[in-house]
Parts: sequence; C-alpha cells; structure tokens
Amino acid sequence: MLTRTILLLLLLLLPAITVAQTREKGPWWPNAQWGAEDAAGGSNWITPEKVVRATALVKTGRIIELGHVYERGMPLNGSRSFNIFIPSFPTHGPILERGVVFNDEYVSAEIGQVGTQFDGPGHVGQRVKMSDGKETFVFYNGVPAEEMRSPHGLLRNGVENVKPILTRGIYIDLAAYKGVATLPGTYEVSLADVRGALARQGMKESDIEPGDALLFNIGWWRLWPDPRIESAPHAHAGREVIDWIIARKPSMIGSDSNFDGPEALVHTELTMKNGIWNLENMDFALMEKEKTHEFMFVFTPLRLKGATGSPGRPIAIL
Amino acid sequence: MLTRTILLLLLLLLPAITVAQTREKGPWWPNAQWGAEDAAGGSNWITPEKVVRATALVKTGRIIELGHVYERGMPLNGSRSFNIFIPSFPTHGPILERGVVFNDEYVSAEIGQVGTQFDGPGHVGQRVKMSDGKETFVFYNGVPAEEMRSPHGLLRNGVENVKPILTRGIYIDLAAYKGVATLPGTYEVSLADVRGALARQGMKESDIEPGDALLFNIGWWRLWPDPRIESAPHAHAGREVIDWIIARKPSMIGSDSNFDGPEALVHTELTMKNGIWNLENMDFALMEKEKTHEFMFVFTPLRLKGATGSPGRPIAIL
Amino acid sequence: MLTRTILLLLLLLLPAITVAQTREKGPWWPNAQWGAEDAAGGSNWITPEKVVRATALVKTGRIIELGHVYERGMPLNGSRSFNIFIPSFPTHGPILERGVVFNDEYVSAEIGQVGTQFDGPGHVGQRVKMSDGKETFVFYNGVPAEEMRSPHGLLRNGVENVKPILTRGIYIDLAAYKGVATLPGTYEVSLADVRGALARQGMKESDIEPGDALLFNIGWWRLWPDPRIESAPHAHAGREVIDWIIARKPSMIGSDSNFDGPEALVHTELTMKNGIWNLENMDFALMEKEKTHEFMFVFTPLRLKGATGSPGRPIAIL
Amino acid sequence: MLTRTILLLLLLLLPAITVAQTREKGPWWPNAQWGAEDAAGGSNWITPEKVVRATALVKTGRIIELGHVYERGMPLNGSRSFNIFIPSFPTHGPILERGVVFNDEYVSAEIGQVGTQFDGPGHVGQRVKMSDGKETFVFYNGVPAEEMRSPHGLLRNGVENVKPILTRGIYIDLAAYKGVATLPGTYEVSLADVRGALARQGMKESDIEPGDALLFNIGWWRLWPDPRIESAPHAHAGREVIDWIIARKPSMIGSDSNFDGPEALVHTELTMKNGIWNLENMDFALMEKEKTHEFMFVFTPLRLKGATGSPGRPIAIL
Repeated sequence: MLTRTILLLLLLLLPAITVAQTREKGPWWPNAQWGAEDAAGGSNWITPEKVVRATALVKTGRIIELGHVYERGMPLNGSRSFNIFIPSFPTHGPILERGVVFNDEYVSAEIGQVGTQFDGPGHVGQRVKMSDGKETFVFYNGVPAEEMRSPHGLLRNGVENVKPILTRGIYIDLAAYKGVATLPGTYEVSLADVRGALARQGMKESDIEPGDALLFNIGWWRLWPDPRIESAPHAHAGREVIDWIIARKPSMIGSDSNFDGPEALVHTELTMKNGIWNLENMDFALMEKEKTHEFMFVFTPLRLKGATGSPGRPIAIL
Repeated sequence: MLTRTILLLLLLLLPAITVAQTREKGPWWPNAQWGAEDAAGGSNWITPEKVVRATALVKTGRIIELGHVYERGMPLNGSRSFNIFIPSFPTHGPILERGVVFNDEYVSAEIGQVGTQFDGPGHVGQRVKMSDGKETFVFYNGVPAEEMRSPHGLLRNGVENVKPILTRGIYIDLAAYKGVATLPGTYEVSLADVRGALARQGMKESDIEPGDALLFNIGWWRLWPDPRIESAPHAHAGREVIDWIIARKPSMIGSDSNFDGPEALVHTELTMKNGIWNLENMDFALMEKEKTHEFMFVFTPLRLKGATGSPGRPIAIL
Repeated sequence: MLTRTILLLLLLLLPAITVAQTREKGPWWPNAQWGAEDAAGGSNWITPEKVVRATALVKTGRIIELGHVYERGMPLNGSRSFNIFIPSFPTHGPILERGVVFNDEYVSAEIGQVGTQFDGPGHVGQRVKMSDGKETFVFYNGVPAEEMRSPHGLLRNGVENVKPILTRGIYIDLAAYKGVATLPGTYEVSLADVRGALARQGMKESDIEPGDALLFNIGWWRLWPDPRIESAPHAHAGREVIDWIIARKPSMIGSDSNFDGPEALVHTELTMKNGIWNLENMDFALMEKEKTHEFMFVFTPLRLKGATGSPGRPIAIL
Repeated sequence: MLTRTILLLLLLLLPAITVAQTREKGPWWPNAQWGAEDAAGGSNWITPEKVVRATALVKTGRIIELGHVYERGMPLNGSRSFNIFIPSFPTHGPILERGVVFNDEYVSAEIGQVGTQFDGPGHVGQRVKMSDGKETFVFYNGVPAEEMRSPHGLLRNGVENVKPILTRGIYIDLAAYKGVATLPGTYEVSLADVRGALARQGMKESDIEPGDALLFNIGWWRLWPDPRIESAPHAHAGREVIDWIIARKPSMIGSDSNFDGPEALVHTELTMKNGIWNLENMDFALMEKEKTHEFMFVFTPLRLKGATGSPGRPIAIL
C-alpha cells in the first residue's frame, strides 16, 4: 500500500522533476557564448580585428545599395502599415525677415518590421513551460515575456542592444546556382545547394568566419513591389541549412525574403535561440550585376529603444 | 509728357526687370557643381576613391558610437513627438505547435527630426519672389514648394536621394580648444576658433578634402537628456565659419547641437543653398575619450521616400 | 497720346479695380446670417425652440443607428488610413493585490475623414485672387489659409466650433422614389426627384424648417464595406438641388455617400459657402425598414480642436 | 499511514476543488441581468420607454456642454499622448478650374482614454485563477484575455457594443453639498454625502431609475487644463457609494474626474463587474450655473470596433 502510494505521489510529481526550465537555465539559455545578460547576439563576433579585415576587402570603393526604399504602398506583411506625412507644409515658419521655412515628416509604422527590415532579439519568442508549472513566452537568451512587456517598447531585448554590423558580407547566390531567376515558391533549400552555390562562386565553406554576414539570394527580390512578395510562399532554408548556418557563427543572415518556411525555423533556431539576426527583404538588383561576392558589408540598426527590429540601409562596399 | 510717361511706365516695370529668379535660375540654383536635377548635394563628393581613402584610416577597427538612443521622453524640439508601442504583446501568435510568437513595434514620430537627426534637401526652404511676381518657398537646388508638396511625403528633394555617407570624419573639438566642457549658450564660434581647434589637433585646413564630414563639438551633448538641450540657445557657427565650411566642400557637417544660431544661417547657407547636410544632436561622450580625430565615418540615411530628414546610427571606426 | 497713355494705364490697372475680394468682403463672406466671426454655420439654426420641437417628434423612443462601425479595412477615400491597436495588452498593470489591468487603444487615422464622417468649416477651400493681387485659398466665412494653417490643427474654422446637432431629421428616400435599390453611379439628382421623393413620403417642401437635417438616401450604403463605395462614382446632387438645399437653410445634409459630383459643388456651395455641414457615408440599412421619415436626429461632432471634420454616431429617435 | 497519505493528497488537491471559476461561471459572470453574450452592460437599461421619458424632461431646449475640447497639450494620464496635425495644408488639391482644396486632420492618440473619455467593457480586467489552475485576466461579463487580445483592437468587449446613451441625467453636486468649490484630494465620498447632495437638490433616492446616468460633481473640473487634474489624487467614491450605485442600476456614471480611488473599485466593481460605464473628465463649468439637475442627457460612444473606450461630446438638454 505504502509503495503504491509513494509511486502515485511520484507520478504526480514527475513532470515537475523532469521539466528543467528555469529563469536561469533552459533549452537555449543562457547563451553559451555571450552569457546570461547578452542581447547583442551574433554582433558580438564583430571584433575590431574583424572590422579591420572587412575594410581590407574594399578595392574600388564602389557602394552598392542592398535595400529597398521605404514608401507608402510598399508590400507589407499581414496587417502592418506604413504612413508618412508632411504636417502642414511648410511645417514651421516662415520665420525671420527672409522667410525661412522648415518641413518635418511624420511617420506611423511598424518601423522595424516593414520593407527591408532587421529582426532583433525582441522579435521572436516561443512558449515554454517552466519548472514551476507556469507557461510563458521566452525570447532570446531566456528573457521571458514578463521581463519585456511594457506598452512603450520592450524593457529588455530591444534592438538598441545590437552592435553595428560592419563586417564581411558573403553573397550566396542560390538562384544562380540553380540556374533560375527565382527559386520556386515552396522550394526548400538544401545544404548541397548552399555548398554548390559557394563552390560556383569559388568559395570554400572553411573561408567563412564568425561574424560574417551571410546573404542568400533566392531571386525573390524580383517581385518587389508586388504585394505578393510579402504574402506568397517563397523558397526557404531547410533544417540542414539552418544547422549549418549556426555552425558558421555569423553575426547575421540576410536575404531577399526572410528565408523562412512554414515552420518558422529560421526565426526560432537562428534568431531566437542563437542570436543570429535576420535582415529581410534585401534587394539584390544591383548586386546581381557584380562579380564580387565578398565585400565589406555595413548595416547599422537604429538604436530604437525597446524596438523589436529596425529599418536601415544595407550597403556593400566593393 | 511723353518722356515722363515712359519713365513712369519704366518705374512700374522695373521690379519685373530686376528680379531674376525663375524656376531655372536663382540665387542658389541650379547647383553649380551637381546640376539642376541633383538632390544628393554634398554626398556626391564621396567618390569611390574617397571611400577607399576612408577605409585606409581604419587602424584598430574599434567602433565608436556617435549618436543617441531614440526613446520616449528624449528631448524634442518644439511640438515634435516620439511614441513607440508594442501592439498587443505578443503582437502575433502563438502559432504552430510549439507556440511561436512575434512582436512588432509601432512608432509614431517626426522620425527624421527627433534625437540624432540628419537634415536632407527637403527640410529647409526660403521665401523667394519670382520674376513673374509670384512668391513661393524654394528649397535645395531651386525646387519650389509646388513641386514638393504632397500629403504623403515630398515629391522631390526627399532624403532618399542622399547617398550613403562613408567618408573621412574630422572631429573638430571647439570646446576643448576653448578650454571648457561646454561653450556658452550664446557663443558665436569664429573662424579663429575653428582654425585654432584644428591646430590643437595637429591638423591643417589644407588637409580637408571635398566629401569629408566635419563634426563640431561644442560640448552641448553633456546636457542630454535634459530637455533644455533642444530648447536653450547653444553655441553656433558665425558667418565666417559658414563661409569657410562652404569653401571646404564637405559632404555634411555634424555637431552635438544643430550648430545654428538665431539667424538660421547654417540651415539656409549650408544645407539649403549648398547641399551640405547636417547631422544634429550627435553624442560625443565616447569620442571625447579618444585621441584620434580623423577616422572612417559612416552614416547611412534611411531611404525614406519623401522624408525631410532621417534618423540613423553615426559611427566612427578608428 | 496722353489719352492713349491714360487708357494704357487704365488697362494695366483694371484687374485691380474690378477684383473686389478683401479679407473683409468677398463672394461668400462675411456670412450674411451669422456674421464675420462665425464658424458654426448651419448649426446656429438649431435654437432651443427647434430642439424642443425635435423632442416632440419622439413617439416610441426607439433608437435607429444611422452610421457605420469604424474598423480597420473599412473603405477609405484615396490615401487616407485607419489604424487601431491595443498597446501591449494589457496596456497597464497588473496593479494592486487582486491584479487589476487596463487596456487602452491607440488610433492613428484621418479620424474626421474616414467612414461615417462629418465635414466642418475647415475642410473645403477655394482659390481666390484678392484685390491686392495675392492668391490664397479661402474657407468658410472668408477665413484664408494664412489664418488657419498650423502643423497641429487649424487655428480657425476647426470642427469644435460646430454646435451639437439635435434637430429634426428628414429622411428623403431618392432611391425608393426612383424605384431602385441604388441610383446609378453617374446619376444627377434633379429637383423633381427631390420633390417627388418628398411627395411620396407625404411631405411638403414648405414643411422644411431652418435647422433641419436633410438626409438623402441614394442606396449607395448597400455597397459597404466594398472599397468601391469610396472610389466609384455615385449619384449626386445637381445644381438645382444644391440651390434648393441652400434655400431650405438646413443645419446640415447627410447621405450614404457624400452626395457630391465631379464638380465638387456640394462641398463648395453647401459647406464652404453656406456652412451647411455634410455627414457622409451614413448607413440606411435600418432606416430603410422604417415608415417614419421625420424624427429627432442627433449627431454630436467631437470637439476636436483644429480638426477638419469629425467621426460620430448619428442616430434617429422615432 | 494511509489516512495521513489521503489527507496529504486532499491537501494537495484542495485548491483545485474550491476554486470555482470557469469560462462559464465566475464571481461576476455571466451577467445576471443581460446574459453571457452581453457587452452593452448598463446601456441595456435604456429602453424605448426610458428614452421617451427622457425627452419629456426637455423644457427649454437649451443645450449645455458637459465635456472638454480635445487638444494637444491637454492633461493626459501617465504615458498617453494626443497628437493632431493637418497633412500638408491643403491636404488635397487644388482641383478643378476654380481651385478647390481639402484639408484632412490626422490624429494619433489613445483616443478613447484621453480628455473626456468613456470607459467601455474592454478597458478593465482582473486576474483570476481558473479551476484548471491557469491564471488569466478576465474582463466584463467573464470574457478572458485570450478571447480579446489581438493587435488591431479587441476581438470582444469593444466599445462599439455599447448602445447610445440617451436617458435621464442626474447631476449630483457633491461639492456644493459640502459647501466647497472642490472636494479635497484624498476625500472619500460617503453614502451620507450622496444622499445629502440629492436632498439638497430636492431629489429622493427612490426617484432614481434603472438606465439613468448619474453624474457626480466633485469640483475637480476647475483644475482643467492644469496637468495635475490627471496626476494628483482626487476625491473618490467610497465602498458604500459604490454598492449604492450598483443597486441603482444606472446605465453609466460620469464625473469630472474618474471618481475612483487608489483601490480602483469604481473601475472593477462598477465597470468591470457590473457594466456600469464611466464617463471621466466631464466639465461642469456650465452645468454649475444651472438650477436644473435632472435633464435629458446624451452621450453617443463612437462605434470604434475593438476600442477600449471612446471620446465624445456629452450634453445636457434642459
């Protein structure tokens, strides 16, 4: 009887014993590389030495734009919006005898999640059942919703924590490797595809260093500004590619979509669990014409306190 | 009688004869250097060769932040506002079996004219009486209000026209030259001050090249985040300094204020007439500790179509 | 010679002599009924006696909704937008031991010009050449743009000046009179149509009193929420109808569109020149089922200082 | 041993046994009067007969404003904001030969929670531990957060569910009863105060009917537009007054504050649990001069889908 009772009690307590998630330790936290307080993720790999090596890649000094213009009517995902006005025109003035006037613009938008957008540590979370039985959503480096939520921006894991990206950019032309202008919508990119694309460009996997920005072209940029670019399914990284990216320790990835599929593995496995940030909706119209696939790459996320992402102006300097 | 009548008629017609402003030609247009269609101004000076020379300045690869964080409650000029929310938290989801969630931020603000802000070609205009007698406000490169006004962003002279700034930055420490932490509020900076500051830093005026970014420290950054930083008078460039800056042909100036005085001469003479853009409210807290005053400087204005200015993340790479 | 010279001078001066517009007096100002300072227009007709007579119309006390719900995705004109979200959810809290929480909503929209919208005195203007030769835009009661413009709302002629509308509403069912569900898109409503509709409803033109709200049904409401309701041409008042309305001295008109045609005569002749306000995009789905066409009508424009129009909740009390 | 074990198990299970909250039944749901699906609360009391009786109160037809103007810079609670501007001015045009122009306004604000504001069913919630052990926030009529949360407005319990308020308003002048202009900031209003105020006005408690709007003057309106009106403590209803109000079955209460104290009992006990809506920040400057305390009262909450509250223009018709 006693044995059975004890077994019964053990059965009741078993979930509590086996579930290991606590605020201090869980499946993807604390970050093994950067520690429990980190919110800069992969941008930490960009050391001063890395920066120097990036500048050494500059040969001609030509700057290539890698992002879209932000404008009303551009494709947007779901219910997001982008609005811009000039209040009053001119907004201020005229002042002084010679009649000086000033214009402001007023923007209302999910500014870090529209157009060419950079996902930071506060963007992606996942449900976790903690050891105490409570369920919550946990974000990069184990920060739970309760420590982030606030009406006026995230209290932790805001995009302002990400360091400037000035590093080597490696453009990996998957579409060209597959001999198409645009990969098919539901195509799952394989590790063989990635390796093949690198080889086609004369690059070796072992060339890739921590802190690099890996920029994947699937040819999806050709749809811009058709709204389907944000609503139709596009080629995405398969599981092997995701594991391969993690092993490469890049600061970030970029692509002309979000490179993610219906299982949201890029968002959770790369960004949320590993702090590999993701620059989405890049434009490769100009890069496509270049022969150089390694270059100094610059992307400076806005220091928008408590934001989940950032707009920006990614450029390659060849 | 006839003579008097003719003289009378001539007197009536004289204004029309002497006023020379037309759409094609006026006191500051077309831009002598860049032509009538230009809206990139001083950023045109940043040639590929200039970019290469800028990268050569990088010695250690250390990145120094030169701008403020954008946050609710930061100092703002006049009636401008800055608001940021996280809709709903989490904004989207949970989706999928493992319960993935996503946060967006929503920002409402005069986004290019708050905090560390970059003034573009659509920001400053001045009243002009044209030859046909009509008065209008004219902006950079002679573009009149009628060709710019639109409720949803400027039709011309939007900040998206400015090219990325990747150039040599020259930090000119006026406050240190004058032996003070912060220049007095009403102080008018003289040409002697500028030359003295350069000399103190071991630099010669003749070192300055077209396309450089001239960054003036008046010590005003120390007030941040006190609201008076945006409302109290601060040291400003005198007329001689303005003329000297124009002669140096920089891509832009920057300072820890807007470097302008009650006559708005920086805004009209540098920015409006000469396309020398102006990065305001820089933060020199970290730069102050450095000994290097020449460095690679990066500022990538957002390609915000029809905006008057841009936020950004100015950095020095030493 | 002298004669010819004098004639020449006279020819030059003639436009100045014949153009009579001044700030004090022009084609539609000062308002003959309400004086030069007025911004309440037709709402001035609603005297206490008029209000008492309106309450006397209430027989059953049933309230009929006459407006649409405001929601994301509703039809909007041109580039207007409507966005609403709940910051954070809950926005505030929990507070206190029992864990009280509060939600706010945040709305970004041309709030007085979306959905069921009421046009006030600051909404419509027209170009006028003044006696001094200057051209400007003049609004209700002769107020020129210069006296209204301000980045943060109109300095004059804001909708907050309009008095509450509590009056007799007269529903004029033009579509039913013509025996159709919806009048054809380009149909111009004639005076005979209006009189016929009144007669069909057993009403006489002479029954109409100053201060009444004349509500015209063209059956356009049936399109809601199809976006074409805001973009496709709809039946509109012809010139005779407009003159007839002016002669009736209503406080306002309403309709299930804006009742205006390509010449914008409702906007300029009724609203701008005569202060007959215009409630657009009403919903007559419920009114259609009623037999009563005269009722107490309530519409309380928001006291939104400096706004051009107002949302609201028009109701009929039968 | 067995007994002790069983007792131990019972102790573990006890909370689950005693907690009775389910989605269907809890401490304040389903609403006993209006049923499980209701979101109109006290506005349901306003029957057609009640409306007729309200119109019969109108003697002179004079309309008295009972709310504030909404403007930039008005007092706001906490971090809320209110911004309005005119895009471009004129926003549209000129069009047509005669040069017609149109202005829009653009408003960004917690529009239902600023200035004179009406709290609806989605505004107030409280933490509840459900029988299944899960904790959630529950709102009016037992609707839990999960059924309401959505980035773009509440899915349930939006203010659009509240019916128009056209009823008898009873102005209860607490400040006059106590012989002061404004009740002291921390004053707790007692039931004796309420009864005394009614008696002073020649009214009996038994006069009050279901559906009435009870409007309490504490003299706080005198502070407007001083920001302390939204930040300093003000007189509030004590527990007895709250219970008394519930027993009166009004459609709503109103006051020149929010009539609530540090325990938030007005918000939870009146609004959240009983659907007695709350019109806050009323203005009694004009009502103060009147001798009539019973009148037809009109407040039409905007049909803002998914909003937590509404602005409006409350009026008394005497």
